[in-house]
Amino acid sequence: MAEPKALRCVTCGREFPPWSVDYFCPRCGFPAGNLEVLYDRDKPLRRFPDPARFSLWRYGELLPVGEEHAVRLRAGGTPLYPWAQAAEELGLGALWIKDDTLQPTASCKDRGTAVTVAVAKRLGRKALACASTGNAASSLAGFCAAGGVPCYIFVPKNAPAPKIAQLVAFGAFVFRVDGNYDQAFALALAASQEFGWYNRSDGLNPMVVEGNKTVAFEIWEELGDVPEAVVVAVGDGAVIAGVCKGFLELREAGLAPRVPKVFGVQAAGAAAVAHAFARFQRGAPILPAEEPAETLADSIRVGKPADVVKAVKYVAETGGGYVTVSDPELLSAARELARRAGVFAEPSGAAPYAALLRLVREGALGQKDRVVLIITGSGLKDPQGVTRDLPEPPLIRPDLRAVREAVERCA
Amino acid sequence: MAEPKALRCVTCGREFPPWSVDYFCPRCGFPAGNLEVLYDRDKPLRRFPDPARFSLWRYGELLPVGEEHAVRLRAGGTPLYPWAQAAEELGLGALWIKDDTLQPTASCKDRGTAVTVAVAKRLGRKALACASTGNAASSLAGFCAAGGVPCYIFVPKNAPAPKIAQLVAFGAFVFRVDGNYDQAFALALAASQEFGWYNRSDGLNPMVVEGNKTVAFEIWEELGDVPEAVVVAVGDGAVIAGVCKGFLELREAGLAPRVPKVFGVQAAGAAAVAHAFARFQRGAPILPAEEPAETLADSIRVGKPADVVKAVKYVAETGGGYVTVSDPELLSAARELARRAGVFAEPSGAAPYAALLRLVREGALGQKDRVVLIITGSGLKDPQGVTRDLPEPPLIRPDLRAVREAVERCA
Repeated sequence: MAEPKALRCVTCGREFPPWSVDYFCPRCGFPAGNLEVLYDRDKPLRRFPDPARFSLWRYGELLPVGEEHAVRLRAGGTPLYPWAQAAEELGLGALWIKDDTLQPTASCKDRGTAVTVAVAKRLGRKALACASTGNAASSLAGFCAAGGVPCYIFVPKNAPAPKIAQLVAFGAFVFRVDGNYDQAFALALAASQEFGWYNRSDGLNPMVVEGNKTVAFEIWEELGDVPEAVVVAVGDGAVIAGVCKGFLELREAGLAPRVPKVFGVQAAGAAAVAHAFARFQRGAPILPAEEPAETLADSIRVGKPADVVKAVKYVAETGGGYVTVSDPELLSAARELARRAGVFAEPSGAAPYAALLRLVREGALGQKDRVVLIITGSGLKDPQGVTRDLPEPPLIRPDLRAVREAVERCA
Repeated sequence: MAEPKALRCVTCGREFPPWSVDYFCPRCGFPAGNLEVLYDRDKPLRRFPDPARFSLWRYGELLPVGEEHAVRLRAGGTPLYPWAQAAEELGLGALWIKDDTLQPTASCKDRGTAVTVAVAKRLGRKALACASTGNAASSLAGFCAAGGVPCYIFVPKNAPAPKIAQLVAFGAFVFRVDGNYDQAFALALAASQEFGWYNRSDGLNPMVVEGNKTVAFEIWEELGDVPEAVVVAVGDGAVIAGVCKGFLELREAGLAPRVPKVFGVQAAGAAAVAHAFARFQRGAPILPAEEPAETLADSIRVGKPADVVKAVKYVAETGGGYVTVSDPELLSAARELARRAGVFAEPSGAAPYAALLRLVREGALGQKDRVVLIITGSGLKDPQGVTRDLPEPPLIRPDLRAVREAVERCA
């Protein structure tokens, strides 16, 4: 386990001793003053990955905290599936699906949560908190339940009942805030500071990105190499920041000769990060980034992305970019991924596949490219969301003739 | 990979060459004539487990088919979590949770499906089928999607919409049968024989148990030993048959000196296997086993268990037994497992924890016993099922005073 060397402000570059500040540079404020975790580059890695561990703790030498502080749930170690048929059809060198939904609470958020909860334990924090209606909240609720740590979740009033049910099942203390998501986020932050809760909100807590980056380590380890491109959905930006940071650290450590181009995907109706990236490419500042957000893909329905600075800068550093896709493209990607690859993603989780089709069509990716799609969220949390307007299966009499007729009708 | 030596009828003991018959002994019929897969005992195991594979295919030498026929989804390799606090409270030697929901389609059924679909590929069968409303159906639909194999699912008319949505998403051909589950099962079997579909229904197809048994291999491998007791929920009996067969094969192969007592749990209102076991212990025949089935735990709501013969005989061979628990005990177990262990199970999945509390109370398990609870199905498929009568979280104004009041009210 590597103790971090410092925390650095992504905007002013000022460095802080590890653990001296929780969330952001006091001079730049939030979100301009988001922090990144730095490690000692001169210290050689000795057991990276550590073959004795299966979870994300096998990358302990580039994590801010050791497994001895971790709670029991196993984050990481998700499968990477080759998808040769689609690669061939699309004219790609190779294509893989990283099914990052196969985690304790069924989303990639468990990576960031695993590390953040371990940090809370190491620092002796007595409770955790976050604002979210979705995967980050259920992830935090699950890990806190496993760790026997109280957990306070702030959700906007209109959060869907099944998602709240999961939080309640895990025993989280859930506040339904009479307001929108931004108000819930602000209240979670204020309450964390007031009551001493350690706040896991994406984009706020730099430790989340430390967990998220392990998906890059896994791709690198399993392929024995880095691919040419990696595609991942973007809401607040903390996941793609992790993906990029992981590959950048591998290069920095001399473990990989280069980094893949990392492509972020947003819904066309909720594209604050993509727009900030376009502005940044034209030389304008990244902040402020705040827009209306409308899409059926609720996990990436973010108007005020908390990790936008990292999500823009790091992606630029990899030579990647951003793609926006329409809601029909998202829905169709989720269906095609389920039907053809057997991977059941929520619409945001399937977004990388929708983006891939565009990137290939536009000639950005082709025969020389080996591509990984990271699938971040499971379709199981809202199965009817994916099939909403498909026809209902036929009701048949319980006899063979009815079966034959139904089969022939649909042949 | 070991080619099976023979298929043997569990009732008359007659043996058949491998692959010469699909489902049951023609003399004894179904379900008396269920088949078990036998391996060559004289052939030493050379790579068991095979360290180069992570999924259940690492146990290929005791599987009927090789990984070269498998489809891309990764079944097996689920985590085993120690739960020291509960072990101490209950006065057990040790306690683990085997979270077998962390599979591609979120249930233990993926083990049986992985092997059955690979067998279908090896045998050149062009399509698969099964009857189920639940986990087995979504598992088969997912693996068939991944394998590019058509898949026909028969569900009773009243099957819940979210479960059908998942099947439709995977592109399965779903027949809603105007009748009950037994009629759907019979129609699936008749249609499979008529159209040449390979039928994966639990209890019918002996290959399902071959996949299911790998959970025992994983427990043995991870502990480096076998525990004193293993507890698992029972519906049709195919899962517990697999658990027992796995441990019995380990002993037979000289890899473990003994087998754990395997305990099956059923809902008090759907206890056909438990009752058949009690009859068998008194010297009566196992069949016929058919009863009304009423419980909120839909995944074990089975009145006519298809694998009852194995589920009774094998459990007796391990020295274990059956426990029945009430619906309130199931619900409370699911909540406690989520809240205290961070593992979100459906009520049937949490049944082993409910049973454990009984077994400890009745003195059947105690200080000398190391126990594993196998959690078979995820709470994610119906989150509101677990929390149905819990109070709704408080709605608060977006200010700190409201947070403080809510926390103090619930302290």
